[in-house]
Amino acid sequence: MEIKVIRNILEANDLVAAGIRERIGEAGAVMVNIMGSPGSGKTLLLERTLEEFQGRSRIGVIEGDIRTSIDAERLKRFDCPIVQINTEPFGGDCHLPANAVGKALEGLDLGGLDLVLVENVGNLVCPAEFDIGENRKVVVLSLTEGEDKPLKYPLMFRESHAMVLSKLDLLPHLDIDIDQVRKNARSVNPNLKIFPLSAKTGEGIKAWIGWLNGELKK
Amino acid sequence: MEIKVIRNILEANDLVAAGIRERIGEAGAVMVNIMGSPGSGKTLLLERTLEEFQGRSRIGVIEGDIRTSIDAERLKRFDCPIVQINTEPFGGDCHLPANAVGKALEGLDLGGLDLVLVENVGNLVCPAEFDIGENRKVVVLSLTEGEDKPLKYPLMFRESHAMVLSKLDLLPHLDIDIDQVRKNARSVNPNLKIFPLSAKTGEGIKAWIGWLNGELKK
Repeated sequence: MEIKVIRNILEANDLVAAGIRERIGEAGAVMVNIMGSPGSGKTLLLERTLEEFQGRSRIGVIEGDIRTSIDAERLKRFDCPIVQINTEPFGGDCHLPANAVGKALEGLDLGGLDLVLVENVGNLVCPAEFDIGENRKVVVLSLTEGEDKPLKYPLMFRESHAMVLSKLDLLPHLDIDIDQVRKNARSVNPNLKIFPLSAKTGEGIKAWIGWLNGELKK
Repeated sequence: MEIKVIRNILEANDLVAAGIRERIGEAGAVMVNIMGSPGSGKTLLLERTLEEFQGRSRIGVIEGDIRTSIDAERLKRFDCPIVQINTEPFGGDCHLPANAVGKALEGLDLGGLDLVLVENVGNLVCPAEFDIGENRKVVVLSLTEGEDKPLKYPLMFRESHAMVLSKLDLLPHLDIDIDQVRKNARSVNPNLKIFPLSAKTGEGIKAWIGWLNGELKK
Protein backbone atom coordinates (compact mmCIF):
# COMPACT_ATOMS: atom_id res chain seq x y z
CA MET A 1 0.00 0.00 0.00
CA GLU A 2 2.78 2.40 0.94
CA ILE A 3 4.53 1.85 -2.41
CA LYS A 4 1.30 2.37 -4.32
CA VAL A 5 0.70 5.75 -2.70
CA ILE A 6 4.25 6.95 -3.29
CA ARG A 7 3.93 5.89 -6.91
CA ASN A 8 0.73 7.91 -7.20
CA ILE A 9 2.38 11.01 -5.76
CA LEU A 10 5.26 10.68 -8.23
CA GLU A 11 2.94 9.97 -11.15
CA ALA A 12 0.73 12.94 -10.29
CA ASN A 13 3.84 15.09 -9.98
CA ASP A 14 5.17 13.95 -13.38
CA LEU A 15 1.88 14.80 -15.04
CA VAL A 16 1.92 18.34 -13.67
CA ALA A 17 5.62 18.66 -14.60
CA ALA A 18 4.91 17.65 -18.21
CA GLY A 19 2.28 20.40 -18.42
CA ILE A 20 4.73 22.96 -17.07
CA ARG A 21 7.39 21.93 -19.59
CA GLU A 22 4.88 22.45 -22.37
CA ARG A 23 3.92 25.94 -21.13
CA ILE A 24 7.56 26.94 -20.89
CA GLY A 25 8.33 25.60 -24.35
CA GLU A 26 5.38 27.46 -25.86
CA ALA A 27 6.61 30.68 -24.24
CA GLY A 28 10.02 30.18 -25.89
CA ALA A 29 11.70 30.10 -22.49
CA VAL A 30 13.97 27.62 -20.74
CA MET A 31 13.74 26.55 -17.10
CA VAL A 32 16.78 25.46 -15.10
CA ASN A 33 16.41 23.65 -11.77
CA ILE A 34 19.34 24.46 -9.45
CA MET A 35 19.82 21.93 -6.67
CA GLY A 36 22.41 21.15 -4.00
CA SER A 37 23.04 20.78 -0.26
CA PRO A 38 22.20 23.58 2.16
CA GLY A 39 25.00 26.13 2.02
CA SER A 40 26.51 24.81 -1.20
CA GLY A 41 26.32 28.30 -2.69
CA LYS A 42 23.20 28.17 -4.84
CA THR A 43 22.00 31.70 -4.00
CA LEU A 44 25.41 33.29 -4.51
CA LEU A 45 25.64 31.50 -7.87
CA LEU A 46 22.24 32.97 -8.75
CA GLU A 47 23.43 36.46 -7.79
CA ARG A 48 26.51 36.21 -10.02
CA THR A 49 24.44 34.71 -12.83
CA LEU A 50 21.87 37.52 -12.67
CA GLU A 51 24.70 40.08 -12.73
CA GLU A 52 26.18 38.50 -15.84
CA PHE A 53 22.87 38.25 -17.68
CA GLN A 54 21.60 41.71 -16.69
CA GLY A 55 20.57 43.61 -19.81
CA ARG A 56 21.24 40.58 -22.03
CA SER A 57 18.45 38.15 -21.22
CA ARG A 58 15.15 38.39 -19.39
CA ILE A 59 15.23 36.16 -16.34
CA GLY A 60 12.62 35.17 -13.78
CA VAL A 61 13.52 33.48 -10.50
CA ILE A 62 11.64 30.98 -8.36
CA GLU A 63 13.09 30.60 -4.86
CA GLY A 64 12.29 27.42 -2.94
CA ASP A 65 12.70 27.19 0.81
CA ILE A 66 11.00 25.41 3.66
CA ARG A 67 10.71 28.70 5.47
CA THR A 68 11.83 32.36 5.21
CA SER A 69 12.38 34.50 2.15
CA ILE A 70 16.03 35.23 3.01
CA ASP A 71 17.26 34.13 -0.42
CA ALA A 72 14.61 36.07 -2.34
CA GLU A 73 15.52 39.20 -0.33
CA ARG A 74 19.14 38.79 -1.45
CA LEU A 75 18.01 38.94 -5.07
CA LYS A 76 15.69 41.95 -4.76
CA ARG A 77 18.37 44.34 -6.03
CA PHE A 78 18.08 42.78 -9.48
CA ASP A 79 15.57 43.98 -12.01
CA CYS A 80 13.83 40.63 -12.42
CA PRO A 81 10.60 39.07 -11.14
CA ILE A 82 11.08 36.73 -8.16
CA VAL A 83 8.56 34.36 -6.62
CA GLN A 84 9.27 32.73 -3.26
CA ILE A 85 7.79 29.29 -2.51
CA ASN A 86 7.77 28.17 1.13
CA THR A 87 7.15 24.43 1.44
CA GLU A 88 6.40 24.58 5.17
CA PRO A 89 2.62 24.76 4.65
CA PHE A 90 2.97 21.47 2.73
CA GLY A 91 4.61 19.78 5.73
CA GLY A 92 8.10 21.19 5.41
CA ASP A 93 8.68 19.48 2.08
CA CYS A 94 12.32 18.70 1.43
CA HIS A 95 11.99 19.50 -2.30
CA LEU A 96 9.87 21.61 -4.65
CA PRO A 97 6.92 19.70 -6.05
CA ALA A 98 5.77 20.46 -9.61
CA ASN A 99 2.43 21.90 -8.51
CA ALA A 100 4.13 24.56 -6.36
CA VAL A 101 6.35 25.51 -9.30
CA GLY A 102 3.29 25.67 -11.58
CA LYS A 103 1.64 28.04 -9.14
CA ALA A 104 4.79 30.18 -8.87
CA LEU A 105 4.96 30.46 -12.68
CA GLU A 106 1.61 32.27 -12.59
CA GLY A 107 3.42 35.04 -10.73
CA LEU A 108 5.96 35.42 -13.53
CA ASP A 109 5.11 36.84 -16.94
CA LEU A 110 6.38 33.80 -18.78
CA GLY A 111 5.85 35.31 -22.24
CA GLY A 112 8.37 38.03 -21.44
CA LEU A 113 11.14 35.72 -20.21
CA ASP A 114 14.04 33.85 -21.81
CA LEU A 115 15.09 31.95 -18.74
CA VAL A 116 13.51 30.81 -15.47
CA LEU A 117 16.01 29.95 -12.76
CA VAL A 118 14.64 27.82 -9.94
CA GLU A 119 16.56 27.46 -6.68
CA ASN A 120 15.32 24.25 -5.10
CA VAL A 121 15.25 23.44 -1.37
CA GLY A 122 18.76 22.74 -0.05
CA ASN A 123 19.00 18.96 -0.18
CA LEU A 124 21.15 16.50 -2.12
CA VAL A 125 18.51 13.74 -2.07
CA CYS A 126 14.81 14.53 -2.55
CA PRO A 127 14.84 17.28 -5.20
CA ALA A 128 16.45 14.82 -7.66
CA GLU A 129 13.39 12.58 -7.39
CA PHE A 130 10.85 15.21 -8.44
CA ASP A 131 10.52 16.52 -11.98
CA ILE A 132 9.35 20.14 -11.81
CA GLY A 133 9.03 20.64 -15.57
CA GLU A 134 12.54 22.02 -15.97
CA ASN A 135 14.61 21.71 -19.16
CA ARG A 136 17.93 21.37 -17.38
CA LYS A 137 18.95 20.23 -13.92
CA VAL A 138 22.09 21.61 -12.30
CA VAL A 139 23.68 20.36 -9.08
CA VAL A 140 25.85 22.73 -7.08
CA LEU A 141 28.45 20.85 -5.04
CA SER A 142 30.68 22.85 -2.72
CA LEU A 143 34.32 21.72 -2.70
CA THR A 144 34.04 21.73 1.10
CA GLU A 145 31.66 18.75 0.87
CA GLY A 146 34.27 16.17 -0.11
CA GLU A 147 35.09 13.90 -3.05
CA ASP A 148 32.65 11.12 -2.25
CA LYS A 149 29.32 12.91 -2.63
CA PRO A 150 28.55 11.79 -6.23
CA LEU A 151 29.02 8.17 -5.09
CA LYS A 152 26.90 8.58 -1.97
CA TYR A 153 24.08 10.56 -3.59
CA PRO A 154 24.17 9.10 -7.11
CA LEU A 155 20.65 9.98 -8.26
CA MET A 156 21.30 13.73 -8.00
CA PHE A 157 24.43 13.50 -10.14
CA ARG A 158 22.89 11.03 -12.60
CA GLU A 159 19.86 13.29 -13.16
CA SER A 160 21.83 16.51 -13.56
CA HIS A 161 23.05 17.92 -16.86
CA ALA A 162 25.70 20.09 -15.23
CA MET A 163 27.59 20.24 -11.95
CA VAL A 164 28.90 23.50 -10.55
CA LEU A 165 31.85 22.89 -8.22
CA SER A 166 31.54 25.91 -5.99
CA LYS A 167 33.83 27.69 -3.51
CA LEU A 168 36.92 27.18 -5.67
CA ASP A 169 38.56 30.04 -3.70
CA LEU A 170 38.72 27.73 -0.65
CA LEU A 171 40.62 25.00 -2.52
CA PRO A 172 44.08 25.88 -1.03
CA HIS A 173 42.65 25.38 2.47
CA LEU A 174 40.91 22.04 1.83
CA ASP A 175 42.11 18.44 1.73
CA ILE A 176 40.15 17.70 -1.42
CA ASP A 177 41.33 16.24 -4.71
CA ILE A 178 39.31 18.05 -7.37
CA ASP A 179 40.22 15.47 -10.03
CA GLN A 180 38.77 12.76 -7.81
CA VAL A 181 35.51 14.70 -7.56
CA ARG A 182 35.35 14.85 -11.36
CA LYS A 183 36.15 11.15 -11.64
CA ASN A 184 33.49 10.18 -9.11
CA ALA A 185 30.89 12.39 -10.77
CA ARG A 186 31.69 11.05 -14.26
CA SER A 187 31.56 7.45 -13.00
CA VAL A 188 27.92 8.11 -12.14
CA ASN A 189 27.18 10.31 -15.16
CA PRO A 190 29.71 10.29 -18.03
CA ASN A 191 27.93 13.18 -19.80
CA LEU A 192 27.95 15.61 -16.89
CA LYS A 193 29.26 19.10 -17.71
CA ILE A 194 31.50 20.29 -14.89
CA PHE A 195 32.14 23.93 -13.94
CA PRO A 196 34.55 24.59 -11.08
CA LEU A 197 34.09 28.20 -10.03
CA SER A 198 34.18 30.75 -7.27
CA ALA A 199 31.13 32.99 -7.19
CA LYS A 200 33.10 35.08 -4.69
CA THR A 201 36.17 35.84 -6.83
CA GLY A 202 34.53 35.28 -10.22
CA GLU A 203 37.03 32.59 -11.25
CA GLY A 204 35.38 30.12 -13.64
CA ILE A 205 32.11 32.07 -13.92
CA LYS A 206 32.55 32.70 -17.66
CA ALA A 207 32.43 29.00 -18.59
CA TRP A 208 29.26 28.53 -16.56
CA ILE A 209 27.57 31.56 -18.12
CA GLY A 210 28.65 30.39 -21.57
CA TRP A 211 27.02 27.01 -21.03
CA LEU A 212 23.82 28.50 -19.63
CA ASN A 213 23.64 30.97 -22.50
CA GLY A 214 24.03 28.12 -24.99
CA GLU A 215 20.98 26.42 -23.50
CA LEU A 216 18.70 29.41 -24.23
CA LYS A 217 16.41 29.31 -27.26
CA LYS A 218 17.70 31.58 -29.96
CA MET B 1 -5.65 10.47 1.79
CA GLU B 2 -2.04 11.49 1.30
CA ILE B 3 -1.91 13.06 4.75
CA LYS B 4 -3.43 9.98 6.36
CA VAL B 5 -0.77 7.70 4.90
CA ILE B 6 2.07 9.98 5.94
CA ARG B 7 0.64 10.12 9.45
CA ASN B 8 0.53 6.33 9.56
CA ILE B 9 4.14 6.04 8.50
CA LEU B 10 5.21 8.53 11.19
CA GLU B 11 3.07 6.84 13.86
CA ALA B 12 4.43 3.42 12.97
CA ASN B 13 7.94 4.84 13.05
CA ASP B 14 7.39 6.41 16.49
CA LEU B 15 6.14 3.10 17.87
CA VAL B 16 9.27 1.29 16.69
CA ALA B 17 11.44 4.14 17.99
CA ALA B 18 9.87 3.93 21.46
CA GLY B 19 10.71 0.21 21.57
CA ILE B 20 14.30 0.91 20.59
CA ARG B 21 14.65 3.58 23.29
CA GLU B 22 13.46 1.05 25.85
CA ARG B 23 15.97 -1.60 24.70
CA ILE B 24 18.80 0.92 24.87
CA GLY B 25 17.75 2.12 28.32
CA GLU B 26 17.57 -1.45 29.63
CA ALA B 27 21.08 -2.10 28.31
CA GLY B 28 22.34 0.97 30.23
CA ALA B 29 23.52 2.57 27.02
CA VAL B 30 22.86 5.91 25.37
CA MET B 31 22.19 6.51 21.66
CA VAL B 32 23.12 9.73 19.90
CA ASN B 33 21.73 10.58 16.46
CA ILE B 34 24.21 12.69 14.47
CA MET B 35 22.63 14.63 11.62
CA GLY B 36 23.65 17.34 9.16
CA SER B 37 24.04 18.27 5.50
CA PRO B 38 26.17 16.19 3.15
CA GLY B 39 29.79 17.12 3.70
CA SER B 40 29.18 18.93 6.99
CA GLY B 41 31.86 16.78 8.63
CA LYS B 42 29.85 14.12 10.46
CA THR B 43 32.22 11.26 9.70
CA LEU B 44 35.35 13.20 10.62
CA LEU B 45 33.66 14.20 13.89
CA LEU B 46 32.95 10.50 14.51
CA GLU B 47 36.59 9.65 13.85
CA ARG B 48 37.85 12.24 16.36
CA THR B 49 35.19 11.19 18.87
CA LEU B 50 36.16 7.51 18.62
CA GLU B 51 39.84 8.46 19.08
CA GLU B 52 39.01 10.42 22.25
CA PHE B 53 36.84 7.69 23.75
CA GLN B 54 39.10 4.78 22.83
CA GLY B 55 39.85 2.72 25.94
CA ARG B 56 37.47 4.84 28.05
CA SER B 57 34.01 3.88 26.83
CA ARG B 58 32.63 1.07 24.72
CA ILE B 59 31.11 2.51 21.56
CA GLY B 60 29.10 1.01 18.71
CA VAL B 61 28.48 2.85 15.45
CA ILE B 62 25.58 2.75 13.00
CA GLU B 63 26.38 4.36 9.65
CA GLY B 64 23.49 5.52 7.49
CA ASP B 65 23.87 6.18 3.79
CA ILE B 66 21.77 5.86 0.70
CA ARG B 67 24.53 3.92 -0.96
CA THR B 68 28.15 2.85 -0.38
CA SER B 69 29.95 1.97 2.83
CA ILE B 70 32.61 4.68 2.37
CA ASP B 71 32.02 6.14 5.84
CA ALA B 72 32.02 2.77 7.59
CA GLU B 73 35.31 1.92 5.85
CA ARG B 74 36.85 5.10 7.27
CA LEU B 75 36.00 3.89 10.78
CA LYS B 76 37.29 0.32 10.41
CA ARG B 77 40.61 1.18 12.05
CA PHE B 78 38.82 1.62 15.38
CA ASP B 79 38.21 -1.27 17.72
CA CYS B 80 34.43 -0.91 17.76
CA PRO B 81 31.51 -2.68 16.10
CA ILE B 82 30.11 -0.86 13.06
CA VAL B 83 26.91 -1.58 11.17
CA GLN B 84 26.25 0.09 7.81
CA ILE B 85 22.66 0.75 6.74
CA ASN B 86 22.07 1.54 3.08
CA THR B 87 18.64 3.08 2.50
CA GLU B 88 18.73 2.56 -1.27
CA PRO B 89 16.77 -0.73 -1.12
CA PHE B 90 14.04 1.27 0.66
CA GLY B 91 13.79 3.72 -2.26
CA GLY B 92 16.84 5.86 -1.54
CA ASP B 93 15.39 7.10 1.72
CA CYS B 94 16.66 10.53 2.68
CA HIS B 95 16.78 9.63 6.40
CA LEU B 96 17.17 6.59 8.64
CA PRO B 97 13.83 5.09 9.65
CA ALA B 98 13.50 3.54 13.13
CA ASN B 99 13.00 0.01 11.80
CA ALA B 100 16.34 0.10 9.96
CA VAL B 101 18.06 1.28 13.14
CA GLY B 102 16.32 -1.47 15.13
CA LYS B 103 17.65 -4.03 12.69
CA ALA B 104 21.15 -2.55 12.82
CA LEU B 105 21.13 -2.76 16.64
CA GLU B 106 20.82 -6.55 16.32
CA GLY B 107 24.29 -6.46 14.79
CA LEU B 108 25.74 -4.68 17.84
CA ASP B 109 26.14 -6.36 21.23
CA LEU B 110 24.10 -3.71 23.03
CA GLY B 111 24.74 -5.17 26.50
CA GLY B 112 28.45 -4.51 26.10
CA LEU B 113 28.14 -0.87 25.00
CA ASP B 114 28.00 2.51 26.77
CA LEU B 115 27.26 4.57 23.70
CA VAL B 116 25.77 4.06 20.24
CA LEU B 117 26.66 6.76 17.74
CA VAL B 118 24.42 6.92 14.68
CA GLU B 119 25.47 8.87 11.61
CA ASN B 120 22.28 9.68 9.76
CA VAL B 121 21.93 10.26 5.99
CA GLY B 122 23.39 13.65 4.97
CA ASN B 123 20.33 15.90 4.93
CA LEU B 124 19.24 18.94 6.94
CA VAL B 125 15.52 18.25 6.49
CA CYS B 126 14.12 14.71 6.64
CA PRO B 127 16.19 13.08 9.44
CA ALA B 128 14.77 15.66 11.90
CA GLU B 129 11.27 14.33 11.21
CA PHE B 130 11.99 10.72 12.16
CA ASP B 131 12.56 9.55 15.72
CA ILE B 132 14.98 6.59 15.65
CA GLY B 133 14.84 5.89 19.37
CA GLU B 134 17.87 8.02 20.19
CA ASN B 135 18.42 9.76 23.55
CA ARG B 136 20.11 12.81 22.06
CA LYS B 137 20.04 14.47 18.65
CA VAL B 138 23.06 16.42 17.41
CA VAL B 139 23.18 18.59 14.31
CA VAL B 140 26.54 19.21 12.64
CA LEU B 141 26.57 22.51 10.76
CA SER B 142 29.67 23.41 8.79
CA LEU B 143 30.70 27.05 9.06
CA THR B 144 30.92 27.01 5.25
CA GLU B 145 27.11 26.65 5.09
CA GLY B 146 26.28 30.20 6.19
CA GLU B 147 24.55 31.96 9.09
CA ASP B 148 20.97 31.49 7.91
CA LYS B 149 20.63 27.71 8.06
CA PRO B 150 18.93 27.50 11.50
CA LEU B 151 16.26 29.93 10.21
CA LYS B 152 15.77 28.09 6.93
CA TYR B 153 15.73 24.56 8.36
CA PRO B 154 14.22 25.26 11.80
CA LEU B 155 12.93 21.78 12.65
CA MET B 156 16.44 20.29 12.65
CA PHE B 157 17.74 22.91 15.08
CA ARG B 158 14.61 22.83 17.25
CA GLU B 159 14.80 19.06 17.62
CA SER B 160 18.53 18.92 18.37
CA HIS B 161 20.04 19.00 21.86
CA ALA B 162 23.44 20.11 20.61
CA MET B 163 24.92 21.76 17.53
CA VAL B 164 28.48 21.15 16.42
CA LEU B 165 29.79 24.07 14.36
CA SER B 166 32.37 22.26 12.28
CA LYS B 167 35.34 23.34 10.12
CA LEU B 168 36.38 26.08 12.55
CA ASP B 169 39.83 26.00 10.91
CA LEU B 170 38.29 27.55 7.76
CA LEU B 171 36.87 30.54 9.65
CA PRO B 172 39.61 33.01 8.57
CA HIS B 173 38.77 32.28 4.92
CA LEU B 174 34.97 32.62 5.21
CA ASP B 175 32.59 35.61 5.24
CA ILE B 176 30.62 34.20 8.14
CA ASP B 177 29.73 35.82 11.45
CA ILE B 178 29.88 32.99 13.98
CA ASP B 179 27.96 35.03 16.59
CA GLN B 180 25.12 35.43 14.12
CA VAL B 181 25.00 31.63 13.64
CA ARG B 182 24.68 31.22 17.40
CA LYS B 183 21.99 33.92 17.58
CA ASN B 184 19.99 32.37 14.75
CA ALA B 185 20.26 28.89 16.27
CA ARG B 186 19.25 30.11 19.74
CA SER B 187 16.29 32.04 18.29
CA VAL B 188 14.95 28.68 17.10
CA ASN B 189 16.08 26.70 20.15
CA PRO B 190 17.17 28.67 23.24
CA ASN B 191 18.46 25.52 25.00
CA LEU B 192 20.76 24.35 22.23
CA LYS B 193 24.31 23.50 23.35
CA ILE B 194 26.78 24.85 20.82
CA PHE B 195 30.25 23.45 20.14
CA PRO B 196 32.39 25.25 17.55
CA LEU B 197 35.27 22.94 16.67
CA SER B 198 37.71 21.75 14.06
CA ALA B 199 37.93 17.99 13.81
CA LYS B 200 41.00 18.63 11.63
CA THR B 201 43.08 20.67 14.09
CA GLY B 202 41.40 19.43 17.29
CA GLU B 203 40.39 22.94 18.41
CA GLY B 204 37.20 22.80 20.47
CA ILE B 205 37.04 18.99 20.55
CA LYS B 206 37.43 18.81 24.35
CA ALA B 207 34.18 20.70 25.07
CA TRP B 208 32.27 18.40 22.71
CA ILE B 209 33.74 15.25 24.26
CA GLY B 210 33.02 16.65 27.74
CA TRP B 211 29.36 17.14 26.88
CA LEU B 212 29.02 13.72 25.26
CA ASN B 213 30.72 12.07 28.22
CA GLY B 214 28.30 13.84 30.58
CA GLU B 215 25.38 12.29 28.70
CA LEU B 216 26.57 8.72 29.37
CA LYS B 217 24.95 6.70 32.14
CA LYS B 218 27.31 6.37 35.09
